[in-house]
Parts: sequence; structure tokens; C-alpha cells
Amino acid sequence: METLYWKDNKLYLLDQTLIPRDIKYCECLTYEDVIDAIKTMKVRGAPAIGVAAAYAMALAECHNVNLDEAAVKIKQARPTAINLFWAVDEVLKAVDSGCSAIDAANKMYNDDIKVNEKIGEYGNTVIDDGDTILTHCNAGALACAGYGTALGVIRTAHNSGKNISVICDETRPLFQGGRLSVFEMQQENIPVQLIVDSAAGFMMQQGKVDKVVIGADRVAEGGVANKIGSLMVAVAANRYDIPFYVAAPISTFDFENNIFDTTIEQRDKNEVLCINDKFIANENTEVSNPAFDIVESDLITGIITEEGIKKPF
Amino acid sequence: METLYWKDNKLYLLDQTLIPRDIKYCECLTYEDVIDAIKTMKVRGAPAIGVAAAYAMALAECHNVNLDEAAVKIKQARPTAINLFWAVDEVLKAVDSGCSAIDAANKMYNDDIKVNEKIGEYGNTVIDDGDTILTHCNAGALACAGYGTALGVIRTAHNSGKNISVICDETRPLFQGGRLSVFEMQQENIPVQLIVDSAAGFMMQQGKVDKVVIGADRVAEGGVANKIGSLMVAVAANRYDIPFYVAAPISTFDFENNIFDTTIEQRDKNEVLCINDKFIANENTEVSNPAFDIVESDLITGIITEEGIKKPF
Repeated sequence: METLYWKDNKLYLLDQTLIPRDIKYCECLTYEDVIDAIKTMKVRGAPAIGVAAAYAMALAECHNVNLDEAAVKIKQARPTAINLFWAVDEVLKAVDSGCSAIDAANKMYNDDIKVNEKIGEYGNTVIDDGDTILTHCNAGALACAGYGTALGVIRTAHNSGKNISVICDETRPLFQGGRLSVFEMQQENIPVQLIVDSAAGFMMQQGKVDKVVIGADRVAEGGVANKIGSLMVAVAANRYDIPFYVAAPISTFDFENNIFDTTIEQRDKNEVLCINDKFIANENTEVSNPAFDIVESDLITGIITEEGIKKPF
Repeated sequence: METLYWKDNKLYLLDQTLIPRDIKYCECLTYEDVIDAIKTMKVRGAPAIGVAAAYAMALAECHNVNLDEAAVKIKQARPTAINLFWAVDEVLKAVDSGCSAIDAANKMYNDDIKVNEKIGEYGNTVIDDGDTILTHCNAGALACAGYGTALGVIRTAHNSGKNISVICDETRPLFQGGRLSVFEMQQENIPVQLIVDSAAGFMMQQGKVDKVVIGADRVAEGGVANKIGSLMVAVAANRYDIPFYVAAPISTFDFENNIFDTTIEQRDKNEVLCINDKFIANENTEVSNPAFDIVESDLITGIITEEGIKKPF
């Protein structure tokens, strides 16, 4: 199952809001369609957002839209994942040097999978036979062009013959752990157990977690921005001396800013308040719904990249 | 609105699984009806479970059931909250000394509210004007005969003229924070904001939380057992130097056992998997659904009781 593909000058995105109930692709005819799909999280996960953004530039090219203007609008789709900005700039650079946007996007797609396989190889060096690995949100094939970052590490460890099992935090409010990561692990017959986010600490206290591996939306001086809840998992792992790894391609690194300068997206309150069409509280209830938080560097054991395992900075 | 009341030899329990959507009382004619209501969490919260159990004994008395046999069965309803065991034993003691079970239950009901008001008074001494207080789950009037323990502290602070606001963790899987605590605060016009459980750390990192106050299902040597997720809140509060208080009556104290000897109830996996009649993952997914965790003593600033603020032991 492909996260996204390009065919006949259209981009097809697996609609991740419907998984695992429905497997349906959303057809993007224009770059604005891609922006909408990123905003509504039909496509999500930092690397997948990057590749989708590159194809959005290709769609703009197909329809003779000014690429600089399209670039500005695409970058406004979501504020936190740096891959979005990086991918758009990469396409602009390629076009400046005479390449087409579509060729640049295709190259990014292929590179992403190769990069993830490399991350898997390096990550596998820190996974032991018998490990139970806790992960938060979905940093899997569905978050990338394919294979996955955090789940890529788990895939490589499993495929190398290690007997590992996985605990997935459900990841409120949108359940990417419960819906997507559990689904990916079940598809590969990797033993997986689902918990509510707030049970991760208890599992650690009980000695049921050997390693934590998560993805990242941005890596910078001071730490890592990732899905809301990553911080609490890291703080608990730190208390119980459990190694805490971040798996992320170098394209997720921001070498210019401090991580605390990252804009943390606040999303719609109904993501929290309304589940499967029913409100859990009065619909006028005030809600804070930050989509990401910051894991500070001292909580991170290592950052697994395609160039090896780096120390947080 | 009463959490529970006794009328014409029947016990009426506000069905807390329906709040805030429906305000409906469940009529208990027999002590087995009360056991069922405790198991299915129509009534929940350690002090409320205690008082409901006392009235279950009164129902057994009304129907000439052997009280020792009823006591054994009532104690099996849920394993973690010690108030359940304490309340049943108190009624047995009262009956042994010539009192009726119904009088003992009525006394417990009245005492519970008085005790909570005392907890509120002592708790108010650690709350400052302008504080934002984070709470987890529902340790409110709905968790007790009335007034509440953690929310009782918040009520007293608010009523004493302090300008305070509250952040409620939604408290997966059953949303007692989102459904019950938010509702109680809104009823009293206390400013309240709802977050997903995993956002508590981010709110603390951002300096948006001044104090944490939660309830307890059991207090013993080594720490406190409370709703799943309490541990992660405590670990995060500890990292960001935020005072972490537990509000609980002395009836919640277990002076005989270590807190790690507490049986942690594992509840049905569909509480996690199925929300508002829809499954978030494949219905065969393996789930761990512990209902409680243990907050270790070193993470607790103080335990607010009707006899003053105690150090954890």
C-alpha cells in the first residue's frame, strides 16, 4: 500500500483520516488540493508532508502557476514540520538549476525511501533481541514516502530476525498510533499492543518497556519537536532509565534556529471535543489543542539518521 | 445534583457514564445492582464507591441477606480503591455494635461531605490567587457523596475569592476529566480548559501550570494509586518544579500494605478500542488497559486530608 503516488499528472494521497476503516485515495488535481490535504491531515508525518509538498510544486508547474507564489502558499499549510519548507525550497533550487519540478519531486520520493532504509540499518544496531519498543504517534511508512523512520527501525530489527514487540500509544486527539501504527505492525505480523497515551509511564514503571523510538517533525539546537505527548513519554523514560531514541532524516534538521523558536501548531478544538460525531463535553468548552511539543535534548539518548546516530545538540 | 441518594429503601445513583449528555439516575433495588453499577462505573471515584458500597450493605439488610456473605461479594466489585473495603468493614462493625446498616451508611454519606469540606479548607492554604491548577480524572463531587476532594480544594479556593483557573486532562479511556470535571467546573463558573492527557507536559513546559491537585484511590507506604496517567503528570510536574498535591480522605489510607502491593485493575479492552460505537483499530488488537497507576512518594509534595496536609510515606 503506497502512502502517495503520482500518475497522469495527478497526485494520489492515501486518505489517512480513514485508516484502518477505509483504504481510499484522495485525488489532487491542483497544488491547492494538496495544501488542503496537508491541513486536514489526509497526508501527515513530516517526511510524507515534504514529499507531498514537492508534488504540489509539480502540480503548480503542470498548470503554469508561478512557482514562487505557489511555494509561499504551500509553506503556509502547516507551521511545525520543517520538511515542508525544506522540500519546497529543494524543488525551487532544482528548477533554478534547470530541472523540472516533477523530476525533483520524483527524486525526493525515491530518496526518502532509501534514507529510511538507512535509518533502519543504523537504528537496528541499538535494538536487542527480545526488546519491547514503545512508540508514539505514527512515524511509519504512512508518515513517509514508504518504509518509515521509527517504524522503519522496528521493521529492520524484525526483518533481521530479532524477536521484538511493540507498544503503540494511541496518540490523542487523532489516534495516529491506534489507527496507523497498530495497522502497520499488524500488516507485518509484528506483535503489537495498544495503550492509551497516559499508560506509557505505568508500562515503564512495571519494566515492560526496553526502548522508546519516535519520529520528529523538527530537530534543532535544544531538542526535538514531535507529536504532542512525546515530551511526557521522554520524561517518564528518563525517570526509569529507558533509552529514548528519535529516528529522523537529516531533512528534518533545522541548523539555524533553536527548537524553542518552533511555531507549535494549535489545531481545531473539535479534534479533542468531538469523537466519532459525539461531543465528550459541552461544545462551548474551552480547549487547548497543541499538535506538537518539545523533547529537550537532555532527555534524548540519540538521533538515528541516514548518516548514523547523532547526539542531540 | 446529587451523586447518589437513598429513598424508600432504594439507592439511586447518578449514571456517570452518561454525563454530560444525559442526567439520569440508576435505581438499585438489591445489593447486586450496586455491585453491577460499581463494575460498570455508573458510580466511580473512591469515596463515592465507598458510600455506594455502604448502601449496598443497607440493601442487603433490607432483604435479609446474610451481611457477611454480601460483604464478600461487594468487596469483589473492583480491586483498587481501598474505600470500598473500608466502607464495607465499617458497616459490619456498626452492625456488630447494634447499629443498623442503613444508619451506618447514612452516617458515612454525611461524614464524607464534611470530610471533603475540611480537605477543601486545608487545601486552600496551598493555593495562591491567580493559580492555574491542573487536575487529572474526576476527584469531584461526582466522585464522592458530594463536594469533592481535588475539585473540593478548587471549589473552596474559588469560593474564598481567589481568582483561579483549571486545566482538566480528558482522562482516557473513559474521559472522566472531559466529561465530569469539566462539567463540574462549568456548573460553578470556574474557568476551565480541556486538554488531551498527553498535553499536560507541554502546558507545564510552557509555564502554564502552577499547581497539580489530583485525588487518590489508595494512599500507602511508597506512594499513591490513582487513575491511569497520574504517574506521568507527576513525573512531568517534578521535572518542571510544579507542586503536586494529592487530596484524599484518611479512609483512602492503607496503613498495612506497601502501595506496590495494590492490585491494579485491568479493564475491558473495548474501553480503549471502541469509542462512541466505532473501533479505532482492528477489533482483535491486543490492548493493555490498566485503570490505575502508582505515583511514587518522592513525586508528591503533600497529601491534603481532613486532618491537615501530610507528607507521603
